[in-house]
Amino acid sequence: MLSSIYHDNQPVTIGILGGGQLAKMSAQAAYRLGLRVAVIEPAENSPAGMMTKADFPLGWYDSTELERFVEVSDIITLENEFIAPEILDGMTDKRLVFPTPDTLRQVQDKFIQKQTMQRAGIPVPVFAAINSVEEAYTFGKEHGYPYVMKTRTLGYDGYGNATVGRDNQAMVAFMRFTSDPDVPRQMMAEKFVKFRKELAVMVARNRRGETAVYPCVETVQENHICRYVLAPAPDIDDGIRKKAQEIAVAAVEAVEGVGVFGVEMFLTDTDKLLYNEIAPRPHNSGHYTIEGCYTSQFENHIRAICNLPLGSPDLIVPAAVMANVLGKRIGSGVPDTVVGLMRHGRVSFHLYGKATSRVGRKMGHLTALGASVQEALALVKAAEEDLLW
Amino acid sequence: MLSSIYHDNQPVTIGILGGGQLAKMSAQAAYRLGLRVAVIEPAENSPAGMMTKADFPLGWYDSTELERFVEVSDIITLENEFIAPEILDGMTDKRLVFPTPDTLRQVQDKFIQKQTMQRAGIPVPVFAAINSVEEAYTFGKEHGYPYVMKTRTLGYDGYGNATVGRDNQAMVAFMRFTSDPDVPRQMMAEKFVKFRKELAVMVARNRRGETAVYPCVETVQENHICRYVLAPAPDIDDGIRKKAQEIAVAAVEAVEGVGVFGVEMFLTDTDKLLYNEIAPRPHNSGHYTIEGCYTSQFENHIRAICNLPLGSPDLIVPAAVMANVLGKRIGSGVPDTVVGLMRHGRVSFHLYGKATSRVGRKMGHLTALGASVQEALALVKAAEEDLLW
Repeated sequence: MLSSIYHDNQPVTIGILGGGQLAKMSAQAAYRLGLRVAVIEPAENSPAGMMTKADFPLGWYDSTELERFVEVSDIITLENEFIAPEILDGMTDKRLVFPTPDTLRQVQDKFIQKQTMQRAGIPVPVFAAINSVEEAYTFGKEHGYPYVMKTRTLGYDGYGNATVGRDNQAMVAFMRFTSDPDVPRQMMAEKFVKFRKELAVMVARNRRGETAVYPCVETVQENHICRYVLAPAPDIDDGIRKKAQEIAVAAVEAVEGVGVFGVEMFLTDTDKLLYNEIAPRPHNSGHYTIEGCYTSQFENHIRAICNLPLGSPDLIVPAAVMANVLGKRIGSGVPDTVVGLMRHGRVSFHLYGKATSRVGRKMGHLTALGASVQEALALVKAAEEDLLW
Repeated sequence: MLSSIYHDNQPVTIGILGGGQLAKMSAQAAYRLGLRVAVIEPAENSPAGMMTKADFPLGWYDSTELERFVEVSDIITLENEFIAPEILDGMTDKRLVFPTPDTLRQVQDKFIQKQTMQRAGIPVPVFAAINSVEEAYTFGKEHGYPYVMKTRTLGYDGYGNATVGRDNQAMVAFMRFTSDPDVPRQMMAEKFVKFRKELAVMVARNRRGETAVYPCVETVQENHICRYVLAPAPDIDDGIRKKAQEIAVAAVEAVEGVGVFGVEMFLTDTDKLLYNEIAPRPHNSGHYTIEGCYTSQFENHIRAICNLPLGSPDLIVPAAVMANVLGKRIGSGVPDTVVGLMRHGRVSFHLYGKATSRVGRKMGHLTALGASVQEALALVKAAEEDLLW
């Protein structure tokens, strides 16, 4: 349904918690479908906030601001899984919220998340909660080294992780995240996975439980940040592709997810798939879908939360490659010059419109299509050399 | 250049005169490039106006409103060629405006437009200014019947045209548009063209004079309104395709156009190309470029007026077909149900977000890609049957 049930003679307003690039691209999809957009984020001039008058820059910790945001919205979603589920709880008696607070609870704590997946029969790395330095030593003794010590909540892009290479590193790793008595952190450990590829699958699931499953892609990281996404993942068997998609669907169903979800997996050096992470929202590994697929992850996210039929997730062309455009310095969010980049006429350039850049910050992305992953990758690599900050 | 030269630490703001679907899709492209958008239009809640806080709904006849719009904008463009060039003149000492007032002057008066094209060596139908009923009779006597009587300014989608089938219809046709002394209309006549196809080519031209030429497409009209666009135009020789593209480029150069222009042509039943019309802005016949081409007409319009290199206008897939979604009744701008339509998972649905519909009003469009025009056309036709107002 596209008509608002709360406001006469209006289309649905999608309310987005968060105003960054994921919110921006979701807003783009909502507008294409003739819907309206509201954005709440604790900042002025956010990339998505610029695109609407229904912008609430005091953020969701301001209860009046939050009330006003809820009032203008019909269906509420998020771009950032770190929001406290209690804030969503407070909205669900007034408006539909997807993903739901319950889904968020199962996802936000990485230990609970892994338990949920394991219970659903999804293959996961060996893991355990670590509540003391002694348990840290025990984990290493039982399962070997190296292992990864992780904060159970609030980690992303490598923040909140520490590799424990041998027993005498366990204490330092544990203390690193737990030494501030004002900021209690629960910890967990995961056996280090020797992987030959990191894979990802986006899954859209609407309120009726219908799903659209995107291709299995490979993500290439540098310094814990995604650099490239290769679609479809090259050099893996069709059987593994299908299995990765099945795992992704099972993961989304395990948390009763509604919306688009990004499921990340490891492909071990013995070609076994192991679940890694789930993001309850559109994901960096799905930006290629804008040009590369019949329906982008952003449009399917909007369709899913509006309970509309999902669009085809299939690739339009044989291959697509996305490259993140990461900040190289502290400075302006506008590149010095894009003229060189734009001469690459078959490469799509997305600039998120953030006011400032810093090293490693996601400022935009490039996407190229091709007859093969190699061809598309060569196109983006040639283009990114000509983008000067 | 993407940085504003008028406002520190900001990207360029594209100011758009007009807030309808062409402005909306241009705004989408500007946002993707990290730019900002301002919209001026004499209406609240216009499709494009919804997408920005820099919305000026008192319109350009309000001089204060116009000043405020000009102040926030860096580069100004339009979505509607009916704006008085004098309004643009008033802005050009402060801001860059594309298309320029001079281009608009050459385009807005269809008689001057045809003279310009003829002088540039472009093949045009036989035409003449008609300043009296006598001249109307003379035209028919010299060139035969039927011919089309047209207002020289302000006609579109068939409004302002009257077919003169025989001499005794000439007076009625002439008087029809010229009988109101308060609304002086200048008239012209054009010999009726027996065409087997109507063709169109979008051309982007930046401030350096670089061009990107889109495929030659066929437009299918019903009741003077575009119903379908078939890309590329089927059943014509490659030689004719190339010639159509050359004519289109020559037409844009003849008016020194900057931005994206839609050039329409007739293909006669003896396979001759005749120039018909030019729109100094993105055009209905180019909506297929959003999904179908490496760079949409809207993005190339933004690139052109910002003097950036143009993106590739090539088709990504063999064929694309667009169908306009036209209003069937007076009523809401939101369809009763889109569920049936959206089950067609490979058809892209664009809804413009207009508040009300009326018969024949452009409310949105559908686009399908395919291995052939027939395949893509079948997809859109199947989908549009399931869209219910």
